[in-house]
Parts: sequence; C-alpha cells; structure tokens
Amino acid sequence: MAEGHGEGVVTAALLVIGDEILSGRTKDKNIGYIAEYLTAIGVDLREVRVVPDIEAEIVAAVNALRHRYDHLLTTGGIGPTHDDITADSVAKALGVSIDHDPRAVAILEERYGKADLNEARMRMARIPAGATLIANPVSKAPGFSIGNVHVMAGVPTIMQAMLDDLASRLPTGKKMLSRTIPAGMGEGRIAQGLREVQDAFPDVIIGSYPNFEPGRTGGFTTNIVCRSRDEARLIAAEAAVKALIDKLDGRPA
Amino acid sequence: MAEGHGEGVVTAALLVIGDEILSGRTKDKNIGYIAEYLTAIGVDLREVRVVPDIEAEIVAAVNALRHRYDHLLTTGGIGPTHDDITADSVAKALGVSIDHDPRAVAILEERYGKADLNEARMRMARIPAGATLIANPVSKAPGFSIGNVHVMAGVPTIMQAMLDDLASRLPTGKKMLSRTIPAGMGEGRIAQGLREVQDAFPDVIIGSYPNFEPGRTGGFTTNIVCRSRDEARLIAAEAAVKALIDKLDGRPA
Repeated sequence: MAEGHGEGVVTAALLVIGDEILSGRTKDKNIGYIAEYLTAIGVDLREVRVVPDIEAEIVAAVNALRHRYDHLLTTGGIGPTHDDITADSVAKALGVSIDHDPRAVAILEERYGKADLNEARMRMARIPAGATLIANPVSKAPGFSIGNVHVMAGVPTIMQAMLDDLASRLPTGKKMLSRTIPAGMGEGRIAQGLREVQDAFPDVIIGSYPNFEPGRTGGFTTNIVCRSRDEARLIAAEAAVKALIDKLDGRPA
Repeated sequence: MAEGHGEGVVTAALLVIGDEILSGRTKDKNIGYIAEYLTAIGVDLREVRVVPDIEAEIVAAVNALRHRYDHLLTTGGIGPTHDDITADSVAKALGVSIDHDPRAVAILEERYGKADLNEARMRMARIPAGATLIANPVSKAPGFSIGNVHVMAGVPTIMQAMLDDLASRLPTGKKMLSRTIPAGMGEGRIAQGLREVQDAFPDVIIGSYPNFEPGRTGGFTTNIVCRSRDEARLIAAEAAVKALIDKLDGRPA
C-alpha cells in the first residue's frame, strides 16, 4: 500500500537509471527538473534513487519503489543500444511479457522508414504488455506507463516533453504551497526561535537553508521555507517567522 | 557483506538528505561532484538515494546502504536548526549514543566564542560516540566518520572541503579508466555494431550516450564511453569502436 497519504496527497518516487550518472561523466539534470515539476502539479516527490545499468538493480529498485508510492517515474535506458535495458527490466519487475508493440513500431516506421528501421532501432519498440505509450514529440521513440510505473528517456529535452504528456493524465493531489523568507543571518542565530515557531505550527513544514557567501560578514545567510497545503496556516507561520527575524534584527514589532 | 568486490574494487553509496532537494527548491550540486571525485580516486559509486528530513527514512536508508557497500557518504542535515537530524539519525541507525563531543565543542568555541555558542550552535557538536571528525575549513562545524559512514554538510563549498579531508584517509581501489569516443551519428546506426564490440570485450563496460542537437541533421550525435581497470583492454576496445565508426562513415580501414 502506498504510504504518506493524507487527504488529497499523491506521492511519487523517481528512479534514475544510468552508469554515466554514477561515474560522474554525465551530470544529472532531471532530478531537479522533475522535483520542481511534480511539486508544481501537486505530487509529492518522496524519494529518488540512482542505479546502474544492471538488470537486477533496476528490478529491485522498481519493486521497492512502485509498491511504496502512488507513482514511480524512471529516466534513462530506453534507447536502441545494448546498455538500454530499462523496458525489459520493468517488464521483469512487473512479471509481464515484453515484445515489439505495434503502436510503437508504427511510430518508428513513420520516423525512420521501413528500410532504415534496423534491429537496433526496433529495440525502442519493445514495450511491456498492457502499457500505455508516453508521447515523444522530440525524437518519436515513445516512453510508456504500466500500472503506476512511468518510463521516460534520460536525455533532458526528451524527458521534459514526455513529462508534459504524462502529467496531462497523472492523478495529482492538493498542491503543497510554500513561502521563502530570506534571513540576513546565519542559522545559529535564528535556530532557537525557529524551533519555537515550528513547535507552534506542527502542521507546517519549516525548513532552514544556509547559503555560504564568503564576501559577507560571518559568511552565512539563511532562507527559511514554510510549506503547507493550508494557505491560512502557511500565511500565519510566515508571519511568525518574519516577526522572529525582525526581533533578532532589533526592529520593533 | 559489501558486494561487488573484485580485486582492488572499492564501492560506495551516497545518501542525500533534504526536503529541499525533493521539493525542487534546491537543485542538488553534490551528486555529480561526488560521483566524479570518487571515480577519480578509485572508488566506484554504485547507488545514490535522496530522502527527506524524516528520521525513520534516514535510518532505513543508512542501514540499507552501509551494509551493502564499502562506504556510505551522506550530505545534508548537520546544521544547527531543528530540521538538521542527520547526526542523531545516523547514531540511531548504528545503535550508538550521541552527545556533545568535546573535540567539536572546542572547535565551535574557537569559532563563536563561549558567549555566542548558544544551544542551537551546540547542536552542531552532537557527534555519535566513537566517530572521527571530518575537518571543515570553511565554516568550522565538523562532519564525522563512524564505521564506514561518512557524514558531510549539504552546502556544496563546505561538502567539497570535507570531501578533501575525508578522501585523504579513505581506502581506495584500482582506478576505473575511461575513454570517450564521439560518434557523429545517432545511436540507431551504431547500436548493432556496438553490441558486437561489447560481446567481443565482455570485460570492458561500453556505454552509449546520445546527445540531442536540433541543429544537426537527424538531431542526434552519440558519445561511446569504454571503461575498464585494465588499460590494455581499454585501448583495444577503443580501437574496435573507432574502427566501427570509420566503417559506418565509409572511411577505409
């Protein structure tokens, strides 16, 4: 059973598949994009994993995450080369068969022509039985959704286009709202008062994020971020944080 | 028992701790840096997880990863505010006590002076029993290593300085070497031949990474990356890939 459900809460995990991320050769650009996107549409990203191009690792991660969250999104490993094993691994994880999908074959035939649709490119038409295709307006070879698992490309421009298609039919929840309050001081000065604000607003998630700017006195500034699905509570917590900062800065209430 | 050991292979996982990464508010800059750094010093990064600032999640991830890999590095959650719960969570995961560490207290006293070392800042001196400190030349509050778990800050400049200190005493393995061969064609053209090269070099990891450049004909180029700890085998695989590309481009052998 998916966890973390309150009323109107929809959860997700992201599985990034690829040796190149773990070796550092490619710097992932998808985690931050997807995190921000899901937050904006009312889906809570609860966990991210990065695993290598090894079938057993992908299968284990897919099964750990798909049971635990409402949705599992994956990126990477759906191209035509021998190291693209995501579709087969997802089929294995779900215990379903996989073969050339006539809808995907038609899309690839249109793009490449029958003559150039070689065996390797046909690999991109391997889709698990029962899946829905995710459109790829950039380079055509589709992603797919099966159950609550949504398989997308790793190339950022393609992933972003696929995410737009997926999001149009993804059940979403009540949006998490947030307010960021900049504090011109290090965390050490605001921490005690902030804990008291958090205690007074247990239903608002209050986070504190230091920035290190060597040019400044002391070096640190802090952003306080309040998050809640209840706008009235969010505004009240924001006001309490601002009052705290004013007090610490010696400004009258 | 840690897995994935061949002779001279040292493995690691990375646990990124922080709501702000999962909400997309902060874009992680540590995963790529650490991945590249570990590869360069001869440590194989095998898995990354991102979890929220929730004790049970951190404890579960620490225990899953520290048993499976030679090293577990963590980033985030060691500041002075109420949402900084990494040190306490790691102590809980390892079943050890945690208290103000005299070495860490001395470092913080020197930085802040006794008068300004308030309760919140003292929180940064909470270190699990038996840990070794990781130096923080940027802002002083230390990280720590306990067993094979290495706890670092989330602010990139501080994490990078801590990683330098940690790396100086981290057991490392035989370096993974790599060669990147650019191919001026999409993956679909090179995939079949590349699979044959991979079959001929089962001891070399061959990856294929497409780039999408809309300006080019067809849109795609590809980088082929060969990786091995054996330089002679790496050079031989690289030559085979180059010969394949020349053949596909119609150049004489």
